[in-house]
Amino acid sequence: MRYAKPFEDLIEEFRKFPTIGPKSAQRMAFTLLRKPNDQIEKFIRVISDAKYHLKNCKFCFNLSAEEICPICDNSQREHNQICVVESVKDLIAIENTSEYHGLYHVLGGVISPLDGLGAEDLNIQELILRINAMDLDDLEIILALGLSTEGEATMLYLKRLLEAQAKNIKITRLAHGLPVGADLDYTDQTTLSKALEARVLVS
Amino acid sequence: MRYAKPFEDLIEEFRKFPTIGPKSAQRMAFTLLRKPNDQIEKFIRVISDAKYHLKNCKFCFNLSAEEICPICDNSQREHNQICVVESVKDLIAIENTSEYHGLYHVLGGVISPLDGLGAEDLNIQELILRINAMDLDDLEIILALGLSTEGEATMLYLKRLLEAQAKNIKITRLAHGLPVGADLDYTDQTTLSKALEARVLVS
Repeated sequence: MRYAKPFEDLIEEFRKFPTIGPKSAQRMAFTLLRKPNDQIEKFIRVISDAKYHLKNCKFCFNLSAEEICPICDNSQREHNQICVVESVKDLIAIENTSEYHGLYHVLGGVISPLDGLGAEDLNIQELILRINAMDLDDLEIILALGLSTEGEATMLYLKRLLEAQAKNIKITRLAHGLPVGADLDYTDQTTLSKALEARVLVS
Repeated sequence: MRYAKPFEDLIEEFRKFPTIGPKSAQRMAFTLLRKPNDQIEKFIRVISDAKYHLKNCKFCFNLSAEEICPICDNSQREHNQICVVESVKDLIAIENTSEYHGLYHVLGGVISPLDGLGAEDLNIQELILRINAMDLDDLEIILALGLSTEGEATMLYLKRLLEAQAKNIKITRLAHGLPVGADLDYTDQTTLSKALEARVLVS
């Protein structure tokens, strides 16, 4: 015995989301069903708005309601800095620090042969075309990918590719070190070694 | 800095579901956005099918695609047993034991003054009307509500109300005892007392 067919279908749809198990899917389906009609219609409208009105910025591939995202479109920002990130999520994380005022380039992943993701599946070609239209003498590319093996390999690949475009291009990466508030004895050896290696003078 | 407006709205919609925090809502929104158009359209169709095609069975308030649910409509089942449950979820849980062959009555909650739920908000009046149309001499009502204070109070209330309809009505409740596979030293005192009190002869 299971639920009525339309309800089973609804549970099934929710189960397709990552980390949503059968109990959560059931709870979500019940919650949805209990909502008044206008709220369900709003939910449906928001889904289709997101799907049909959102696009990737033609320059940086950030999610945007316009052709060009608000960051690329902002003349106040430093247009000679490009921070290369894996995803829109990472872009938002960096934006939320309020420390960075340049532009971005969202790769859409990292090179990962095991997942069938090659350089040609990412927005790498677009990055090269984009910087070739810029003044290379005054350009900084910040490689801000995650520090997984694939992230590291992708950064190495990008570094070589960028250097092949111009010798004088400035390529940087995020600093390694202790997370703020970290306990030394709970920090993994690699992080601790990197933090020691990159030690700075006490000012 | 936040996401583009249509995407923020989508995250906001997912956050309205219970137990879905900001990170999960964001993950669900990204997952949805990455789906191909036909899958999004299917998701929307399933939601509106569930909302507009599902109703409550006119007898027992089970979720049903028809006026009368498959359980009430099944002449093979014992029509002189009514198991009173709090929710459709509980109905399904009992159905899945395959041990019960009677009918159900879904209350839609338990009496809970703190949540503003009184007897008049539940399908109690409908239960009384329903049994008054039946042969009371040969009727068993199984009160299968949860054992919270509110559940216990609701069962007591129902017992009195049912007895007021007819003296000879058979009213039962689920047995208390040890869960199958339970360790005695991990079982709470109340359950253990109830299990001891309801001890049975070894056959």
